[in-house]
Amino acid sequence: MFSLKELQTKVAELFAAENFNGNPGELYEPISYTLSLGGKRIRPTLLLAATDLFGGDIEQSRYAAIGIEIFHNFTLLHDDLMDRSPVRRGQPTVYRKWDENTAILSGDAMHILAWQYFLRLPHHNLHDILKTFGKTCIEIHEGQQYDMNFEKRSDVTIDEYMEMIRLKTAVLLGGALKIGALYADANPDDIEALYNFGIDTGLAFQLRDDLLDAYGDTATFGKQTGTDIKDNKKTYLFLRAIEKGSDRQRQRLQELFSTTPDNPEEKISEVIDIYNQLDIRSDVEQHIAQLHKKAMQELDRTNRQDTAKQPLRELACSLLDRNV
Amino acid sequence: MFSLKELQTKVAELFAAENFNGNPGELYEPISYTLSLGGKRIRPTLLLAATDLFGGDIEQSRYAAIGIEIFHNFTLLHDDLMDRSPVRRGQPTVYRKWDENTAILSGDAMHILAWQYFLRLPHHNLHDILKTFGKTCIEIHEGQQYDMNFEKRSDVTIDEYMEMIRLKTAVLLGGALKIGALYADANPDDIEALYNFGIDTGLAFQLRDDLLDAYGDTATFGKQTGTDIKDNKKTYLFLRAIEKGSDRQRQRLQELFSTTPDNPEEKISEVIDIYNQLDIRSDVEQHIAQLHKKAMQELDRTNRQDTAKQPLRELACSLLDRNV
Repeated sequence: MFSLKELQTKVAELFAAENFNGNPGELYEPISYTLSLGGKRIRPTLLLAATDLFGGDIEQSRYAAIGIEIFHNFTLLHDDLMDRSPVRRGQPTVYRKWDENTAILSGDAMHILAWQYFLRLPHHNLHDILKTFGKTCIEIHEGQQYDMNFEKRSDVTIDEYMEMIRLKTAVLLGGALKIGALYADANPDDIEALYNFGIDTGLAFQLRDDLLDAYGDTATFGKQTGTDIKDNKKTYLFLRAIEKGSDRQRQRLQELFSTTPDNPEEKISEVIDIYNQLDIRSDVEQHIAQLHKKAMQELDRTNRQDTAKQPLRELACSLLDRNV
Repeated sequence: MFSLKELQTKVAELFAAENFNGNPGELYEPISYTLSLGGKRIRPTLLLAATDLFGGDIEQSRYAAIGIEIFHNFTLLHDDLMDRSPVRRGQPTVYRKWDENTAILSGDAMHILAWQYFLRLPHHNLHDILKTFGKTCIEIHEGQQYDMNFEKRSDVTIDEYMEMIRLKTAVLLGGALKIGALYADANPDDIEALYNFGIDTGLAFQLRDDLLDAYGDTATFGKQTGTDIKDNKKTYLFLRAIEKGSDRQRQRLQELFSTTPDNPEEKISEVIDIYNQLDIRSDVEQHIAQLHKKAMQELDRTNRQDTAKQPLRELACSLLDRNV
């Protein structure tokens, strides 16, 4: 069994050993650039951890680990184009550094590359592995579409929001774990429990992301604080405040979320004031704690030695910035 | 064995039986719309014909046939966005009917759908089938990138052009045939010959497309004549004229292909005049005839009864508008 640290080192080595260049350079350079920007490599780490948890050989699942990270980065590349985001991981996004058509076409090629990595090694479960990958991929796109739809709606419920983030964010964590487990021939009950662990961890991870936008510190979080508020993104915090607020607070929030002032500082601080009045922060923290607890129960449910579960337990905690 | 007509009917029935709708509608409606616009369904017909040629069961390869057509239509959807083409098959393109982000995201989802169709039925050759599909997909994107690169270059050679259209157009015909043959457990030599038949037919098909842009009839061809000239697209005709023309003709062509007049009629007829002076039409027709002959030799090389090859022979002829 590997420790979390060892798995993370393995993932870093895997990516360092790959060369994503090719001809024509105009197609492959943006791919190589995107994959060189790093990131936490959460999904490939989950995938390898799941293989290892069930006694599989992580050499067998290593290309799937690369493939799932390539797919994730492809979705970010196209999302950045659709959202017109200028910066990703402190560097210009592909559509900004090159142009829109380059972002479309190199993203599409990256998407194919993801599937090709899955095909590098044959495996007796390949059909199930790819079906799981395909289902995960399409759900992420459904989630992205719901997210775009919600921008135009003013009546989104918290349930709808949770379903959207399940699709957009959580299923890829669940999918990575399920795929990793399939490489180890895990049994269906264990796979289901591990998948649920991934879903709950993913939901909590997204809620923490929502929380950090309003309450995080730019230096440690790496993103500009208040961006969701500035962009009128109806996050969990906003929806909870709408649910919980007085008529006056609700009305003021709706007003604020229909403006895009040139200098958004005042708007951001007024919104956070309302959140504070309603104690939204503690509501979100409570929901994260519940999801984290549920995730741990699912992990406990898998039929493996407790010590073997330590890397996944640790990884979930680090994602949620909570103590093990 | 099925006749070409029977295979085409089978393909039409396959698509009529599928429902491409889903939730959220904003994601699936553009997919359903795109796939309802029809087209000649050449690639799925080739795929089923190859399975049938080698004595396989076309029920086994039917979902791959749908998958390859979905992939083809996904590339058209994104190409139309990148080229800003307003019309496809007489109807508004997705980015025009909806918007750019819809075209990006629904195209991406369609791409996943293509892979998912391949996974509908397990097959003992699935790994090889998907590797062939992946290689074909990435090559098409490389071809599209070369095509975009060539727009910015004034020194493209005919060899480079032929390699570009091999990637952008021909490999999907070759790939469809190879995949169809893999479903029938054809032997490697036969698969190679059939693949080459597809490549040569695809190259000839693209040259015919280039020819029809300058010499076709709008009513029967379905596209506006002279579009390549209007858009300064360096097709085979242009490159051959540059190769063959006098200094004066070459210079005039380069001049004309760097302008975009509001009323392009005069430009189009001047370019076609130069083509006529150089007898470009007969050069292209000769090259098409050579490729057609080579394709037929490859088809002859496959170790099957001659009558069994009739559907593919007929299909190639119909694509090239030549007598069987």
